[in-house]
Amino acid sequence: MTDAFIAVDWGTTNRRVSRIEQGSAVATQRDGMGILSVPPGGFPAAVAALRAKLGALPVIMAGMVGSNRGWHDAGYVACPATLETIASAVVQPDEGVLIIPGVYVDTPERADVMRGEEVQLLGAVAAGLAPGDALLCQPGTHNKWATLRQGAIVDFTTAMTGELFALLKSHALIGSEMAGEVNADASFRAGVVASADADLLAALFGIRAASVLGKRAPGEAAAYVSGLLIGNDCRARLRQPEQTVYLLADGLLARLYTAAITIAGGKVVAIDSHASFIAGITQIRNFMS
Amino acid sequence: MTDAFIAVDWGTTNRRVSRIEQGSAVATQRDGMGILSVPPGGFPAAVAALRAKLGALPVIMAGMVGSNRGWHDAGYVACPATLETIASAVVQPDEGVLIIPGVYVDTPERADVMRGEEVQLLGAVAAGLAPGDALLCQPGTHNKWATLRQGAIVDFTTAMTGELFALLKSHALIGSEMAGEVNADASFRAGVVASADADLLAALFGIRAASVLGKRAPGEAAAYVSGLLIGNDCRARLRQPEQTVYLLADGLLARLYTAAITIAGGKVVAIDSHASFIAGITQIRNFMS
Repeated sequence: MTDAFIAVDWGTTNRRVSRIEQGSAVATQRDGMGILSVPPGGFPAAVAALRAKLGALPVIMAGMVGSNRGWHDAGYVACPATLETIASAVVQPDEGVLIIPGVYVDTPERADVMRGEEVQLLGAVAAGLAPGDALLCQPGTHNKWATLRQGAIVDFTTAMTGELFALLKSHALIGSEMAGEVNADASFRAGVVASADADLLAALFGIRAASVLGKRAPGEAAAYVSGLLIGNDCRARLRQPEQTVYLLADGLLARLYTAAITIAGGKVVAIDSHASFIAGITQIRNFMS
Repeated sequence: MTDAFIAVDWGTTNRRVSRIEQGSAVATQRDGMGILSVPPGGFPAAVAALRAKLGALPVIMAGMVGSNRGWHDAGYVACPATLETIASAVVQPDEGVLIIPGVYVDTPERADVMRGEEVQLLGAVAAGLAPGDALLCQPGTHNKWATLRQGAIVDFTTAMTGELFALLKSHALIGSEMAGEVNADASFRAGVVASADADLLAALFGIRAASVLGKRAPGEAAAYVSGLLIGNDCRARLRQPEQTVYLLADGLLARLYTAAITIAGGKVVAIDSHASFIAGITQIRNFMS
């Protein structure tokens, strides 16, 4: 079992840990021990606890654990980025522990960074779930859209779609009207349709006006705002008619993005983000051995 | 002096009070006694205090004092709205006290409301500061853009530009980078230029990426975000090349909107919002006597 290792997708607030043998996850646990819950200097002990549970194995980690707020800043590799260029830039903060770097794009027009998503995005190709030339979307607080060419990330865009929804709900004047549940329902779809005019600042105040004038039932505003934001995000990314988006999501986010991308004229292929992660991190390890 | 009266522009957090004689403000005070600072049942006493200071005169009020959180809900009149249709719908919550209604627009495409701004917008025409056919902008937390035809408000749009800036600064991940001052400087102008691609969700995360990659000097992000938001707002409103915008603003907001409208291809005529208010409310009173 010398090829066995522990893979950790260690984010800000969550963590997913797998024991991997011959490219398959034989045990996986998900918990809320994101990097913010680790006390200063606490990463070696946290990793020792994982080894006590999953085996005294090499550990390879991705995500915010490699940021300047994590264990050790693993930096970023440039686009075009492949699993091989990422593997060549891992850092080793401790014996038998590796942290993989993020990816950046920096052109005269714009700059962007990702950390953690690169394993899933490139792993989707390694797993055979997406072709080497594709547009991939990984929804979340900071939504990632990546363009792959010949299996490399050549460009990507992060949209603060999820964060802005949370901000509006918690702190905006219209937040008090956003108590309802979000589903891929008629209200959500109406928001996606309304996003076509790309006038987000006016559409958001329209929530307040519709409420004052009694034009929207209570409980529908949250789904409508979600549709506005996700619709705006998808429309900005879909540059060709009937473009296929490989969607790394499941559950509610998968349903919402599938509806929005479809309304915006695209096609969706939903793919398994955990399987993509396992394939990606296994291949990174293979490049290093 | 039977034409003398007290005009109150009573907003959520601020209040501006003028004693008006023969169409001119002979005394004006501005204070922080917005409607939120008035205790339940406290409006009669607050008005009595104004009369003790400015004279035992009729009082005409506009703004949030006429909302369901104010003294008395004065409702809204429909577009096209004129000073005459507004005058015909005032409510009288107390002897010698009048509150003027807001204005709404409600079409199959969208709905919008204003309360308080209608006096300045229509008053600008009454004062001879803007023509009867014009696009007017009144910047603020909830920015108003009104289309006037033959001296009537026929359509308007509210954008939550100012509120979104405040939300991002106080609560977003990028808020920690928005500590700098906002001026109509190179950073602001760069944000206005960047707003041309109408991809606000990605541009906002770009603040974070630029910071991580060391591409923007500390202190410049606030002005850049302001430029992004105001630029986005102005570009959505300017539908003709070299369109003239009559801008009801002074100070920093006037400088920012003048820069953004100019970069977006429009022309600006700055007009005095207080003079507009006095002309508007005087004419409303004349229609009622």
